[in-house]
Amino acid sequence: MSERLVVIGGCAAGMSTASKARRVNPDLEIVVYERTGFVSYGECGLPYYVSGLVDDHNQLVARTPAQFAGRGIEVHLHHEVTEIVPENRRLRVTNLEDGGSWYEDYDRLVVATGGRPVLLPGFSFPPAPPKPGLSKVEGLGGMGGGVFVLRALEDGIAVREFIQRERPGHAVIVGAGYIGLEMAESFHVLGLETTVIGRPPQVLKLFDPDMAKLVQEELERKGIRLSLGDEVKALEGDAQGRVRRVISSKGAFEADLVLLALGVRPNVALAKEAGVALGETGAIATDPQMRTNLPGVFAAGDCAEAYHLITGHGAYIPLGTTANKQGRVAGTNAGGGHAEFSGIVGTAITKVFDLYAALTGLSEKEALALGYAVESTTIKASSRAHYYPGGGPMHVKLVVEESSGRLLGGQIVGGEGAGPRIDVLATALHQEMTVEELSELDLAYVPPMSPVWDPLLVAANVALK
Amino acid sequence: MSERLVVIGGCAAGMSTASKARRVNPDLEIVVYERTGFVSYGECGLPYYVSGLVDDHNQLVARTPAQFAGRGIEVHLHHEVTEIVPENRRLRVTNLEDGGSWYEDYDRLVVATGGRPVLLPGFSFPPAPPKPGLSKVEGLGGMGGGVFVLRALEDGIAVREFIQRERPGHAVIVGAGYIGLEMAESFHVLGLETTVIGRPPQVLKLFDPDMAKLVQEELERKGIRLSLGDEVKALEGDAQGRVRRVISSKGAFEADLVLLALGVRPNVALAKEAGVALGETGAIATDPQMRTNLPGVFAAGDCAEAYHLITGHGAYIPLGTTANKQGRVAGTNAGGGHAEFSGIVGTAITKVFDLYAALTGLSEKEALALGYAVESTTIKASSRAHYYPGGGPMHVKLVVEESSGRLLGGQIVGGEGAGPRIDVLATALHQEMTVEELSELDLAYVPPMSPVWDPLLVAANVALK
Repeated sequence: MSERLVVIGGCAAGMSTASKARRVNPDLEIVVYERTGFVSYGECGLPYYVSGLVDDHNQLVARTPAQFAGRGIEVHLHHEVTEIVPENRRLRVTNLEDGGSWYEDYDRLVVATGGRPVLLPGFSFPPAPPKPGLSKVEGLGGMGGGVFVLRALEDGIAVREFIQRERPGHAVIVGAGYIGLEMAESFHVLGLETTVIGRPPQVLKLFDPDMAKLVQEELERKGIRLSLGDEVKALEGDAQGRVRRVISSKGAFEADLVLLALGVRPNVALAKEAGVALGETGAIATDPQMRTNLPGVFAAGDCAEAYHLITGHGAYIPLGTTANKQGRVAGTNAGGGHAEFSGIVGTAITKVFDLYAALTGLSEKEALALGYAVESTTIKASSRAHYYPGGGPMHVKLVVEESSGRLLGGQIVGGEGAGPRIDVLATALHQEMTVEELSELDLAYVPPMSPVWDPLLVAANVALK
Repeated sequence: MSERLVVIGGCAAGMSTASKARRVNPDLEIVVYERTGFVSYGECGLPYYVSGLVDDHNQLVARTPAQFAGRGIEVHLHHEVTEIVPENRRLRVTNLEDGGSWYEDYDRLVVATGGRPVLLPGFSFPPAPPKPGLSKVEGLGGMGGGVFVLRALEDGIAVREFIQRERPGHAVIVGAGYIGLEMAESFHVLGLETTVIGRPPQVLKLFDPDMAKLVQEELERKGIRLSLGDEVKALEGDAQGRVRRVISSKGAFEADLVLLALGVRPNVALAKEAGVALGETGAIATDPQMRTNLPGVFAAGDCAEAYHLITGHGAYIPLGTTANKQGRVAGTNAGGGHAEFSGIVGTAITKVFDLYAALTGLSEKEALALGYAVESTTIKASSRAHYYPGGGPMHVKLVVEESSGRLLGGQIVGGEGAGPRIDVLATALHQEMTVEELSELDLAYVPPMSPVWDPLLVAANVALK
């Protein structure tokens, strides 16, 4: 009799797990339960779907349940796993469409329950289970219409439908992280007057303030209103339960659309209840094979920690790249193969209008908070040879351990070419390179792509002084 | 009394040397002799000057002799060093403008005489010394007008002036390397019917044929005629000594403009004559401090070898990036400081119309020729998330040592983003990374920049199978 793998959650980590387990083990029975109406979609593409740059939400879907079925992977949409009984290797499944509920067995289990959006006090998640065909998130937290999060594909569909139907004029985004800023661009593209309210005194709080400032300037140049170091106190609605104003410590902002973009926390209630151990970060702790403390139970993606290669501790940096890698490893091991996930260095990037802002490793403030003695270097270079038209500034910051000269982190803000360049720094971090070794790299040069001294080499040379 | 540093050659390596020596040693007397009428210009920008994308040739100049004078660096244009007498630390200088010639002393000497273009049999280089104000290269090799090389800034000026004045309709480029292909684009932009004749059966002979083919297809799509595996037999001129046809083994090509783009050889006659030792490649051998075998004599740039970190041998891969790095090291040491040049991995890139073609390390054929047992992997990925508009194919080839799994080289052909990505592979080569380590890299992802699995990771994962 073939073994049975159950995967809870059908986004990046869950479907990578299922796909990899299938490749590793053709005999395994593989079942995926997904709470929402979609699996295997590009969550990071939601801002571009809302803006209309991506026409159809189906374009975001990499593979449909039918396509997975063709590979022998059984996908159940609108099904929620509500209980894990590890001692019996059983779990309880609820069909959200008809309310039916039953126990069933697993041999291997992969928890890929993802993250849940952080909300304002008084809001609850998940909202009432979506009914089939009903994708609009209404009445979230009892606040009334016009208040959204952007997490699942259905959230994106709901925001876009709302904008098309209600033609809101003023959007307020609460939160100035990646999703907040990407959505500010989307709303702006759609003609909404857009305000971003953020609690920290800067946007993109993982970046150092000097680098974040460049992004703030870009947002302001494009007409986004920023209210930073500010805190939302209340959302005011009208008689119809539609949001009308956001009241913050600094003032009141007209709003007929509010997006809560306050980040995510690991969605671990189910696993925790079953006795799955969490790490310091509050996400599920795993070993390099993505095994949890419970036999036969793995975890992957935004519900799990990742080992941070710089700090040597578990980190919670929920990103699709990591989810996919962890899913592959969990799937390999759950399928009976062997794989390990070595860890992350915390690489991330966002595009905000014409700027990319990318980081890897530790920021200066993070390094200092962790007790490192660091030297930081920030340079401004050109993205192309000085004579080649169309270039723009590229800002590079390197954070270097004083005693050893080892690179601890890097940040890049600039136009084209800023993105893949962070990958060179990420590679340097994986390899524990010093800034001197960085300065010696034989990097490519052609005038449309860089000055003869690549911005990374300029930064390394300045850091060496 | 201050010491005296003489630098022979004022292009990338020479002027980097002079600038760095000045920063290291404020007391040094620094003199640069340059045969042509320009120093410190972006040679790699010449194709864009010829095409008109760069308006004025002065834009290519990073710093003028007057600016160098302001830093206490004496630059003499149209001066050629014709003899080095190492036992007396003397050299003979000829003023090419008035023919005057004299001996003078040096304490330290840096040979930065660059490369000389490879020509067809019967042609000679350098042509008659340019007269001041006369920038047109006429009568090269006795062939008559319309035949050019593209090496010095004056060559670029000559080609552009010729095109503006003579309005040629048909260009033939002999040589299908970087300069040949970049100039094919330039000529095409200017409306010339352009043919590229190459001796090897592929363009870009440093690349593997499968990758070069992608570039060939791009050239043909854009209307460039390619005659590969072909050899030029003669250039036919008219009664006025103007070129009219190129006769090759495969046929005859109408031509009122011919560009010889056959690559460069190290320009070492002067140094060799003085007893400077050459390496196996025929370029000047140096130690990591860029010292030659002669006391007080350094070499840098396109006249010198570079240590190849993969092969462990001296290599001749003349590029501006290496010239600049070697110049910095030579200048530091010649100025009394200490620096070392660790070596290269052979990274290079070219832009041909809408494609970048980049390579680093060993190609498959090169690795095989060197006796490595290798596994090669070639993948085609998308440059952006599948749903994000404007993406294009990106082809990645990895060459991996079979026994160790170590990456030996990589090639990338694609649109935006292909360039900086080769730098990740270059970094991996510097660090002797395995393809497994490559597959674990925490690379950045945002839909406008890459799929969630970066093309490099896709290639690494496929290579691991």
